[in-house]
Amino acid sequence: MCAKRLGRATLELERRPGVLASASAVGKKEGEGPLKRSFDYVCPDAYFGEKSWERAESAMLRKCLLLACGKAGLAPEGLDFILSGDLLNQCAGSAYALRDSGAPYLGLYGACSTMAEALLLASLIIDGGGAEKVAALTSSHFCSAERQFRYPLEYGSLRAPASQWTVTGAGAVILATDAPGPYITCVTSGRIVDLGVTDSANMGAAMAPAACDTLERHFAETGRAPDYYDAVITGDLGETGSRLLRELLSLDGVELGARHFDCGAMIYDAERQGVCSGGSGCGCSASVLAGYALDNMRSGGWRRVLFAATGALMSPTSSQQGESIPGICHAVALETEVD
Amino acid sequence: MCAKRLGRATLELERRPGVLASASAVGKKEGEGPLKRSFDYVCPDAYFGEKSWERAESAMLRKCLLLACGKAGLAPEGLDFILSGDLLNQCAGSAYALRDSGAPYLGLYGACSTMAEALLLASLIIDGGGAEKVAALTSSHFCSAERQFRYPLEYGSLRAPASQWTVTGAGAVILATDAPGPYITCVTSGRIVDLGVTDSANMGAAMAPAACDTLERHFAETGRAPDYYDAVITGDLGETGSRLLRELLSLDGVELGARHFDCGAMIYDAERQGVCSGGSGCGCSASVLAGYALDNMRSGGWRRVLFAATGALMSPTSSQQGESIPGICHAVALETEVD
Repeated sequence: MCAKRLGRATLELERRPGVLASASAVGKKEGEGPLKRSFDYVCPDAYFGEKSWERAESAMLRKCLLLACGKAGLAPEGLDFILSGDLLNQCAGSAYALRDSGAPYLGLYGACSTMAEALLLASLIIDGGGAEKVAALTSSHFCSAERQFRYPLEYGSLRAPASQWTVTGAGAVILATDAPGPYITCVTSGRIVDLGVTDSANMGAAMAPAACDTLERHFAETGRAPDYYDAVITGDLGETGSRLLRELLSLDGVELGARHFDCGAMIYDAERQGVCSGGSGCGCSASVLAGYALDNMRSGGWRRVLFAATGALMSPTSSQQGESIPGICHAVALETEVD
Repeated sequence: MCAKRLGRATLELERRPGVLASASAVGKKEGEGPLKRSFDYVCPDAYFGEKSWERAESAMLRKCLLLACGKAGLAPEGLDFILSGDLLNQCAGSAYALRDSGAPYLGLYGACSTMAEALLLASLIIDGGGAEKVAALTSSHFCSAERQFRYPLEYGSLRAPASQWTVTGAGAVILATDAPGPYITCVTSGRIVDLGVTDSANMGAAMAPAACDTLERHFAETGRAPDYYDAVITGDLGETGSRLLRELLSLDGVELGARHFDCGAMIYDAERQGVCSGGSGCGCSASVLAGYALDNMRSGGWRRVLFAATGALMSPTSSQQGESIPGICHAVALETEVD
């Protein structure tokens, strides 16, 4: 049996690919935040032993994959596919991290939704019989992102209240047949949603409509209400975007209530750590999922989680040319018990 | 039945996803080249009705998808997935081209291997029962690539003999169950190969080892000799890279001979059009496949084609930091007759 289509966007998986292992690696600031105990590796500086921030990002992602592979008891070349992507131009963070892996490599670009996109594709490939072990991973680095997307760090620019702090972090999840779980039971793939937001210092607002679209489609197509889940975890909407998402859903009669968590709002202590609206970046949702969320599922705290990572698909060039910011959100349902 | 693994890299597809429709859209220079009759749309200028080259690239890609959808008799929102990516930072060409498509969107980054990566993933998703109709598409634009990767166009820099000319072009292929064909019968996914080439004016040399790796794995894992195919089409190695590929294969006893075609070497008349080693860019192999190659298969000229698009996974930043250029190559086998 293979995947079963529940609606235009949602597929129910038959083979239930499960989490064989997961790992996270983060920077110093993330290691001082509320989730510090959940990360496998915290680097004491921004360099991860390298000479540039871009190389540091690759080193962090490589380390994260090796940690996950170690827990799974396999070498990277034993993976049937590696699915990865990042925010750096030409996704160079992933390419250099994985160039010696020896495994089939499929590069993705989903901006900060990459972890969900990678899990979605990995699940579909495994469910279709095309692979037994697939790694889904991604990273972001505050320093490499800041100078690529915003200003030179030395410039010391002021930050807008709705702005977010790019997480220095990586997360890797290895999915497999015959894994101990949790299992991916269904996936909802997002379409691009652009309501005309142009403020690149307010990504949460640009991405919230896409999250709303995907979550509503997920609930409608699966017939599940939000309370089917113990937690609905969005990627990196931050405080501002999370509030907007709940408002948008509420207008359509969908109430997430206290089961809504946002990785961007969870990873830092916003006030103490001075991150304005919260964390962002591919590594935000990836490191929170691979660490805190999966730990909580394994320990029995959560049995059913909907992981919905969000991405903003603009570039500095498109913003300079006056374009608005297209958002996207993919969702995967993780469950500890399956029928 | 679902995909069957023939080896570490190669999967045989059981449902044989077929080509429902394909389309190509290119710029003026490509429309004056040897393959001019095979393109569906040739724009008389570089702008495709837009005000910037980046917007032009998106307009070209959108037009290409609409042409393919028109031939398939469906609207973009009728697609189960759209898989696309491009060379622009943050793959913005694809995001803006497809933001109004209404279909589930999965962004890819495979540099110039994107068309093969998209076809590979589309085939696996369809084969696994996750979709019935999937569009695989990509684009590149000489002007947007030149200013992002090399120099401002106004600078008029001299070109090195081994350099390639980024194709202004897009190609889209819609795969489906119950399509008239040709069919994708098996796929070989590439791993990253980096032999230390650092000359970004010689991408062919950087990508040839990856093409060699994937082709050799394909032949070994399928048990097919090169003469199983009427044509082995590489993506955009150009004249220099093609020669290197044939030399590398020859050292291992694999002779492609006259059945080797390279999209980069085919799309321009190198001498008359002044393109040095040939064409490159995601749109190079995509437009040649979607046009010339599939036309030739439909008319009976070729019955079996191995399409192996190559990508160079570096970025301007990685090159500035002294990194060598990692290459990748994915291959898909297209056949008009299946058992």
